[in-house]
Amino acid sequence: VATFTLAELAARVGGEVQGDGTLRLDGVAPLEDAGPSDVSFFSNKKYRRAFEASRAGAVVVEPDAELARDRTVLRVPNAYLAFARISTLFHPPREPLPEVSPHAVVHASARVHPSAQVMPLASVGPGAEVGARTILFPGAHVAADARVGADCLLYENVVVRERCAIGNRVILHAGCVIGADGFGFAFDPDGEGNGPRHYKVPQVGNVVIEDDVEIGANTTVDRATLGTTRVGRGAKVDNLVQIAHNVQVGPLSLIMAQVGIAGSTKLGMGVIAAGQVGIVGHLDIGAGARMGAQSGVMNDVEAGETVAGSPARPHATWLKMMAGLDKLPELRKELRELRKQLDTLLAEKEKTGT
Amino acid sequence: VATFTLAELAARVGGEVQGDGTLRLDGVAPLEDAGPSDVSFFSNKKYRRAFEASRAGAVVVEPDAELARDRTVLRVPNAYLAFARISTLFHPPREPLPEVSPHAVVHASARVHPSAQVMPLASVGPGAEVGARTILFPGAHVAADARVGADCLLYENVVVRERCAIGNRVILHAGCVIGADGFGFAFDPDGEGNGPRHYKVPQVGNVVIEDDVEIGANTTVDRATLGTTRVGRGAKVDNLVQIAHNVQVGPLSLIMAQVGIAGSTKLGMGVIAAGQVGIVGHLDIGAGARMGAQSGVMNDVEAGETVAGSPARPHATWLKMMAGLDKLPELRKELRELRKQLDTLLAEKEKTGT
Amino acid sequence: VATFTLAELAARVGGEVQGDGTLRLDGVAPLEDAGPSDVSFFSNKKYRRAFEASRAGAVVVEPDAELARDRTVLRVPNAYLAFARISTLFHPPREPLPEVSPHAVVHASARVHPSAQVMPLASVGPGAEVGARTILFPGAHVAADARVGADCLLYENVVVRERCAIGNRVILHAGCVIGADGFGFAFDPDGEGNGPRHYKVPQVGNVVIEDDVEIGANTTVDRATLGTTRVGRGAKVDNLVQIAHNVQVGPLSLIMAQVGIAGSTKLGMGVIAAGQVGIVGHLDIGAGARMGAQSGVMNDVEAGETVAGSPARPHATWLKMMAGLDKLPELRKELRELRKQLDTLLAEKEKTGT
Repeated sequence: VATFTLAELAARVGGEVQGDGTLRLDGVAPLEDAGPSDVSFFSNKKYRRAFEASRAGAVVVEPDAELARDRTVLRVPNAYLAFARISTLFHPPREPLPEVSPHAVVHASARVHPSAQVMPLASVGPGAEVGARTILFPGAHVAADARVGADCLLYENVVVRERCAIGNRVILHAGCVIGADGFGFAFDPDGEGNGPRHYKVPQVGNVVIEDDVEIGANTTVDRATLGTTRVGRGAKVDNLVQIAHNVQVGPLSLIMAQVGIAGSTKLGMGVIAAGQVGIVGHLDIGAGARMGAQSGVMNDVEAGETVAGSPARPHATWLKMMAGLDKLPELRKELRELRKQLDTLLAEKEKTGT
Repeated sequence: VATFTLAELAARVGGEVQGDGTLRLDGVAPLEDAGPSDVSFFSNKKYRRAFEASRAGAVVVEPDAELARDRTVLRVPNAYLAFARISTLFHPPREPLPEVSPHAVVHASARVHPSAQVMPLASVGPGAEVGARTILFPGAHVAADARVGADCLLYENVVVRERCAIGNRVILHAGCVIGADGFGFAFDPDGEGNGPRHYKVPQVGNVVIEDDVEIGANTTVDRATLGTTRVGRGAKVDNLVQIAHNVQVGPLSLIMAQVGIAGSTKLGMGVIAAGQVGIVGHLDIGAGARMGAQSGVMNDVEAGETVAGSPARPHATWLKMMAGLDKLPELRKELRELRKQLDTLLAEKEKTGT
Repeated sequence: VATFTLAELAARVGGEVQGDGTLRLDGVAPLEDAGPSDVSFFSNKKYRRAFEASRAGAVVVEPDAELARDRTVLRVPNAYLAFARISTLFHPPREPLPEVSPHAVVHASARVHPSAQVMPLASVGPGAEVGARTILFPGAHVAADARVGADCLLYENVVVRERCAIGNRVILHAGCVIGADGFGFAFDPDGEGNGPRHYKVPQVGNVVIEDDVEIGANTTVDRATLGTTRVGRGAKVDNLVQIAHNVQVGPLSLIMAQVGIAGSTKLGMGVIAAGQVGIVGHLDIGAGARMGAQSGVMNDVEAGETVAGSPARPHATWLKMMAGLDKLPELRKELRELRKQLDTLLAEKEKTGT
């Protein structure tokens, strides 16, 4: 296990030590569990109590963090990023063991880089390529003529179907499926005399996953009907997400768990879709747009705009609506009172003849 | 690669050539990517600009499509269906290579048709059957006593659990799970003296997938508690859908991505559930009913009815509500004004004594 | 096949026979399908017609069930639990066949209990443990240093990633993924000079699944960033659920299909989340809390509270809101009338000068 002094860590991430820089540290841990040789992290005020009580040897904090008592901290701007980098020092990425397991099945026409690792029960189909230092875990299947770049991790039971292309430094989590057929059918009222049917539209495009993308467990990215479904450079996609045929996900986008994006929709750079968002097909979602959790996006979204609700609306409008909804019972009561008072007034008027 | 003249294609799909029928074509492509030997497709007006700019050799269009300039088209009713059929000519369904891979595991008591293909790392359990020309991709597992019909595709990592039955010409996409236990528990306050527990109700029924069904990647169809969970003939189910125990999905239904259908609910023929719809248990959804994206269906739906919203209501009612919701802030303002005017009136009346 | 007399069954579950206790029964079946040697079950009034028409030899009912005609029943409190226990008598849990298949891959340093069964194409990684009588189905992968307890079922294509711990009597359904990386990134505006990126925060914690838990098909439970993601004793989780890093699910909780729980949220004991619920991160959901289908939980929920809607509110409040929403069109109409009457009144007043 690697160890570092606090001063060494500070030098690596450009921070400032407050306390004993010679303190030797051998791991990272959450505030509650950390011991005297652990580095921990504090930023969210919700966890101040845990911070105060923590036995951590050192804690990474923002430059302006207030400390209730004397303790050893590493002050650094963007403390979370700094902590992540420190954690990486203690947990360097897995090195491949250059080897094709005798229990793996690699087709004779496939090209697996000599520095790659193919674990037991993984397969590489005819004409497929696997790049340098890439690791295929058990049950990962790379189908015919698919290409996987260098330094990738394809965890257990990942599927990359035929002719799809995976870039470099891509992480595909267990059970994700890249390149299943898109959901495309043409209604055929006659069915060659056998009655109506849904005629399958051949899904003959592919999927391209660009460099530095991470795709979550059991997420599905369908191949294009024609052309390419694309997840852009550096985008991060969470678990159980559905990305339909011909969708384009912009670079650096963040797609949270259980989001669904219907066919041919285009997301610009740096779009954020929170959990369980649904986006209908053939839309343009501008760069930097944000969609709140569970929102149902039925129209284009402008670059930089934030939307919420189902159907989704600009966030400010949605807030007003939700406030209105909260006041609805009160509003109904108020209306009934008005009605009564006005009726009384009208009745009196009737009586007095004024 | 197969090639066809435009006239040949027109003959196959019953359309009419406008332009050079001797033009030889060798593939299909989207409007943007198509070259002079490609057939493309145009129908959605949103893509007119791409149509005008396309370099496609020929384009399949509806009979009444307006053309801005002279270009070669194939006019045909139901142009999308015609295009799908043309695409199939260029991309005929995969032929099985009749072979059981030496890296597959087929139980001695299983019956695999000699024309079927079992790829490496697939398995067929005791007493299971695999029909003619069916293909099992790597990691597909057909469990004990399950039956898979003829001309099926079971893509990578598909699971068909024990005693389930798959019809003919069925496509199961990668990672889908047919026949996992339904979610059934009886609350047991005592737990044989060990305190409360959820007692597992044995899930001993099965799943039947009828002919011509397609099931999406990572979709789950649970086995019945008793009896059968059924997906009817020609129904198409998208990715990441949950179909619970004892559900019946009617023939020719279309179930979009991430829909969830709770236990024992019955869908009639030709039902359409858009993306992320949730349907509670023990309901009847009539033939031809449609459910809008993200709707939450908590009551029976009549045949032919369209519902939307959560909780779901008739579509027209829902539209009115949404319009009302849009007007809520305005309505609150209006009410405040009325209040003010009426108060003034009442105060004056008080003062003047009238 | 085991057979029992009705009197024997009654003795097992503590019920009372009405009719012939010597009747010999050999299975359980739904009311519609049951024959003279089957036990069936009736409780939901919706199915009274099926009950009346059933050919079942005997039916398990609540003590106070009304019978339209003379028929053989077993009256027992908590009839559903009793029926479940009877069904278990006819369908005892699968016994493992103590054997490691020659087509499985077990690392030399792994410890598999001699009474466990490892089926073909399953794998057990270096340093991993598999307990007594546990069954690994084809395609199940237990990664390095993971531990699986006794009497577990890991169905086809289940993944348990490195260092995760599974308790005793745990059922993991096909395709579920335990211990994929959590979705954690720190925005790095500089990216070491290569422009902005999402820097991956190492996910170096693990997942603990406690005793008697059942996890549904294709569900994902992510490993903690640091520390442990935990699913408590006796909790039951349905299909396609997302449980994010550092979530704690309380013992005996019920999490229905397609629910998503974001990072670090804690659920107390016996929480119920209905289908498609979304819960944002860092919340506390008290013991016994209930969340209605599709609700979007954005704030802490008190113990015992029931919430609904998106954003979620107390159930009673939500019902009032939904009623208000139903009345919105009517309310707008009412308001327009008031406006008109008041305007008339004011105009008259203007004219008459009163």
